[in-house]
Order: sequence, then structure tokens, then C-alpha cells
Amino acid sequence: MGRGMSLEHDLNDSNAYYCSCERALIHKKPTPIQVVKVDYPERSAAKITEAYYKTPSTTDYNGIYRGRAIDFEAKETRQKTSFPFKSIHPHQIEHLKKVLQHGGIGFFIIRFTTLEETYLIDAGILIDMYYEGERKSISYMKVKEVGSLIRMGLTPRLCYLDNVDALYFKEEKSYGTKSKRGNGGCECITEATRSKGHQRNNR
Amino acid sequence: MGRGMSLEHDLNDSNAYYCSCERALIHKKPTPIQVVKVDYPERSAAKITEAYYKTPSTTDYNGIYRGRAIDFEAKETRQKTSFPFKSIHPHQIEHLKKVLQHGGIGFFIIRFTTLEETYLIDAGILIDMYYEGERKSISYMKVKEVGSLIRMGLTPRLCYLDNVDALYFKEEKSYGTKSKRGNGGCECITEATRSKGHQRNNR
Repeated sequence: MGRGMSLEHDLNDSNAYYCSCERALIHKKPTPIQVVKVDYPERSAAKITEAYYKTPSTTDYNGIYRGRAIDFEAKETRQKTSFPFKSIHPHQIEHLKKVLQHGGIGFFIIRFTTLEETYLIDAGILIDMYYEGERKSISYMKVKEVGSLIRMGLTPRLCYLDNVDALYFKEEKSYGTKSKRGNGGCECITEATRSKGHQRNNR
Repeated sequence: MGRGMSLEHDLNDSNAYYCSCERALIHKKPTPIQVVKVDYPERSAAKITEAYYKTPSTTDYNGIYRGRAIDFEAKETRQKTSFPFKSIHPHQIEHLKKVLQHGGIGFFIIRFTTLEETYLIDAGILIDMYYEGERKSISYMKVKEVGSLIRMGLTPRLCYLDNVDALYFKEEKSYGTKSKRGNGGCECITEATRSKGHQRNNR
């Protein structure tokens, strides 16, 4: 699962699903672009003819989940043994520090593409490591230790809100129990649960 | 005050101020652009040579204030007697409905540029009007009635978080009293308060 699919694609797909079943309202922000020249041809849409990518000053994703502001950055690496900090812009670290200060939920989603594993790591933990000593990366073993593995499903592709529930809402009832729709209204459908459903239907 | 300054400029300036004094974390999202062609010249940055503006699927501004998710759209009109609903994309109305459903604070900031007046209107109120009957606009008188006038200052340009305090946090202590910095740490500086300060300094 996940082969060939980019992390961004998986997250957009998951957010669209979570939004459609009203579990959360989370969007990817547009990529910041500096527009230099625009043509306004007659009878058609404005055409941008010169523009450049800008360094993002915030993270890529934010929104609202269970009444809380949520904000995160997602990164993937082909490395198998560590995740390099140079993939994260200092602006994004600063932004997530502020998210925590203002009472939001902040985290990183990190995918090891070769291993086909995606982890959620609390922003506070990763930021501490980022500033600690002269570290230039976080090892895969450390990611496994401090992060939580995100289950991959059919719908949504990445069941990352289950990790958010476990990490940030453990005192409260789980999403499924609390929801008026009950379990299954906006849950993670994996190959395992789907085949269980099939067995049930076949009886 | 405000003449020649666009609403977007004023809001970006205000958000930068609120962010620097740690009162809130609110940003404008980048304008969504569909990139079609990119050149990768040697030894220089990628140059986008064909791109088009996309219709925004969400609002322009969001962030965190006093632990709550905040989300709003800002629009200006040159009309003096009403604000036309056609300036608001249906997507933005739908998005703000979801913000309210998920427990966020949602509103519109509407400026009558000719009158040099800027109002904050709760999203719930404006959305009800938007869907009511065959209305195509909201009259200036109605905006005055259901909205709250935003004070213009020197720093920040638009003291809109004071309106947010009054509307959404009236049960709690005001920002100034609650803040560790006390009054004046991140308050609105207007010409009136500045000249008071000058008088004090001159004594």
C-alpha cells in the first residue's frame, strides 16, 4: 500500500474524506508563489507569465478537529535509517512553536517512503530534538520510539486522526464512541476491516 | 486614516503585530495558483512561466486566538449603501458553515472603502442572511446593526481582536486583564492614546 502515492496526495485524500464525513475540517494551504508578471488576454482568464516559489512561512496543513486548532507539517524521506532536519524550514519550526504557545495541537507527519511507514510526532518533542546540541537528523529508531505509526487504510489513506485521538484526547471518549453516528460513521476502513465486512456479508 | 491602504494590507500588518506581541497567531493563506509550466534554468531558481489563479475553496485568513481556532474572510466594497453578496464565493460560505460546526470562531470583515469604515460580522448571522430569500446584498444600515465597527489604530491598523474579545469571549476576562503583560502589552494604539502618552511624557 502507498507505493507510488505521494504523502501529499494521501493527506489531501484523507482530509477530503474526513471533511466529507464531518469528522474534521483540515486543508492544505496553497503553495506560496510570488507573482511577477500577469497577462490579461481579452475574453479569457488572467495568465501568470512569470512567478517564483516562495519559502513557506508557516506549515502546509491546518484546520479544526474536535473544537481544537490543529496545525502540522508533512515530510517524506527516501532514507531508511534517519530523517534529516534540513528538510524542515526553520520558519516551520518557529511557527509550530507558536501553535503550541497559543494552545493549538501541533505535530509532524514523517514518511519513510522506502519502508512505507508514516509516523506522527508531537511538535514539542521534535522541536526539542531540533534545538538539542548539534543534531542534524532524527534516527529511524528514535522516530519509532517517540512517534506513533499511522495506520494506512483504503479510506482514508492515512488514518492519522486516530493517532491524534490517542495522543491529544486520551482523557476524553474516543471519536467513535462520542460521535452521534456511532462507530463506523467516519472510521478508518482498512483491508482487514473490509474483508471482515465481506465475511459477514457472505454468511 | 486608511485612505489608499487596502484591507488586505491593513490585515496583514495587524496580524504581523498581533503575532509579534504574541496575542494571536493568524495568517493570510497564499492565493491558490494552478501552475502549468515551470522552467528550471541552470544555477537559478525555478521560474513559473504559465499559471492561473484558482477559485479559493476556503477563506483567506485563519489561525489561533486564545486557544480557539479562528477563520475569516475579508472583503471590501466601494458601494456606500450596501455590500453585494456576489463578492463572496459560495465555497467560502460553505467553508465558514463548517468552521462553526467544528467549534471554530468564524466571521467576515467588511470594509466600505468610500466611508472608511470596517465591520466585523459573525459568520452565522451573515450566512443566514445569504440564504434567506432572494437577497443579493446586505444594506449598510444592516451591517451597522448586526456587525461591530472595528477601531482603526496606528498599531495595529485594525484592532479587530478587540471586537473578537467582545463578541466571542464576553464571559471571560478581557485580553488586557488576563495577559501577564497587563494592559498596554499588545493593545491597540490609536492617535488618541498616543497623544495621551505624549501629554504624559511632556509633563
